[in-house]
Amino acid sequence: MAGTDSTATTETDADAPVVILVTPQLGENIGMVARAMLNCGLTDLRLVRPRDGWPNRRAVSPASGADSVLQTARLFDTAAEAVADLERVYAATARRRDMTKDQVTPRQAAAEVRALAAAGGRSGFLFGGEAMGLDNDDVALGDAILAVPLNPAFRSLNLAQAVLVAAYEWFQAGVDVAGRDVLWPKATRPATKDELLGFFGQLEDALDASGFLHVTEKRPVMVRKLHNIFQRAGPTEQEIRTLRGVVSSLTQYPPE
Amino acid sequence: MAGTDSTATTETDADAPVVILVTPQLGENIGMVARAMLNCGLTDLRLVRPRDGWPNRRAVSPASGADSVLQTARLFDTAAEAVADLERVYAATARRRDMTKDQVTPRQAAAEVRALAAAGGRSGFLFGGEAMGLDNDDVALGDAILAVPLNPAFRSLNLAQAVLVAAYEWFQAGVDVAGRDVLWPKATRPATKDELLGFFGQLEDALDASGFLHVTEKRPVMVRKLHNIFQRAGPTEQEIRTLRGVVSSLTQYPPE
Repeated sequence: MAGTDSTATTETDADAPVVILVTPQLGENIGMVARAMLNCGLTDLRLVRPRDGWPNRRAVSPASGADSVLQTARLFDTAAEAVADLERVYAATARRRDMTKDQVTPRQAAAEVRALAAAGGRSGFLFGGEAMGLDNDDVALGDAILAVPLNPAFRSLNLAQAVLVAAYEWFQAGVDVAGRDVLWPKATRPATKDELLGFFGQLEDALDASGFLHVTEKRPVMVRKLHNIFQRAGPTEQEIRTLRGVVSSLTQYPPE
Repeated sequence: MAGTDSTATTETDADAPVVILVTPQLGENIGMVARAMLNCGLTDLRLVRPRDGWPNRRAVSPASGADSVLQTARLFDTAAEAVADLERVYAATARRRDMTKDQVTPRQAAAEVRALAAAGGRSGFLFGGEAMGLDNDDVALGDAILAVPLNPAFRSLNLAQAVLVAAYEWFQAGVDVAGRDVLWPKATRPATKDELLGFFGQLEDALDASGFLHVTEKRPVMVRKLHNIFQRAGPTEQEIRTLRGVVSSLTQYPPE
């Protein structure tokens, strides 16, 4: 299917949640929603009575290439029809409603959506239009309210931003990526300890010669300090060669 | 300070990371960035050579009320000057660069930014312009690359969406919100067990009378099933009264 990379995820479309926009107004926002969805691997977009009709040419440019999501978007007359085939619905709203209802964060919803998918059930996220959000009947369609923890003094997200947060959390819940990792250019590799220690030897010889390490009792402490700086940097084999060149060059200053 | 609610968070502005946009193009996008920032409690926006100058009237409407962020935004000639007072910089890029550099997820960066703030250090997120992103010199200013795990076939986030993800993760790392919680309207409260069991008694009496529970050996199982349905719903005191009314009404059908 266009826009998904089956080598990178094991999800099928049936595992991924659906995004339902109820009475969205601006085509531009529908386009930005499509882009945010595809950024996070979601492809099933459903539109309930979009104000300016559908398809809408104004959606195309902001979708920025997520054309497949726009092209397969489906139109419905009511939110109830749009969610009819789903097992669970989260209704996104930032406004407090006078109903007794579970409220979940996007992170929690992501975990629940994936657990339900593993049991064969499909979920959807219901979003209201730009001006008013969901009406109370649409919120009542939801099994729970999706509420994003945000700055309480400025809570209202743009429609596409709200969709992004839900979709982003869903995607994150399925990826196994180290929080911090080192990028290696293809042409190089981490230096071996032998290469690193070889550089340390060169540096210490040079600093002995220059007099920097002349206080004998402080020499071991200073050497450890220098080692730690370069160890923390985790240099590549190429970078060790660069550093050796730097030391060689400095010891020849002023040029002979 | 405008737009922040000091009752809700304990952060000061000095704890919050800075957002730096390098050569942003569209004022609309700068406005959407300001809105996304303030949604997540960030207020320090810095602009490096915005294409259309600054201030830019086109930023105001998309900022949707985050005027304080636009008004206090600062202009810089170079990215290096814009980050000069920061202790740590994350350079956001989706493109692979030919450099050896740590790469972190927004979630990991959020934890690191907060840990550094606790030690008195301030961080910034560096974002490039819409068309080309950061150039390699700007990426090299970063202590690490900020890389959002996304659909590998469609990775490119809109500028404001990229800022939102970084800001959202920073905010989430500081809030203590239950993933799932029940919203209670002010006028009601959860039913007591006495109220719940009273309803069960009424229901069972009615079903005994109607013949629904006439198979003696199956009665306990059926009663437990019914209890579980209503227990899972966790009804309020008001809802118990509604349910009692429903049973009373049904047992009077057809109306006498």
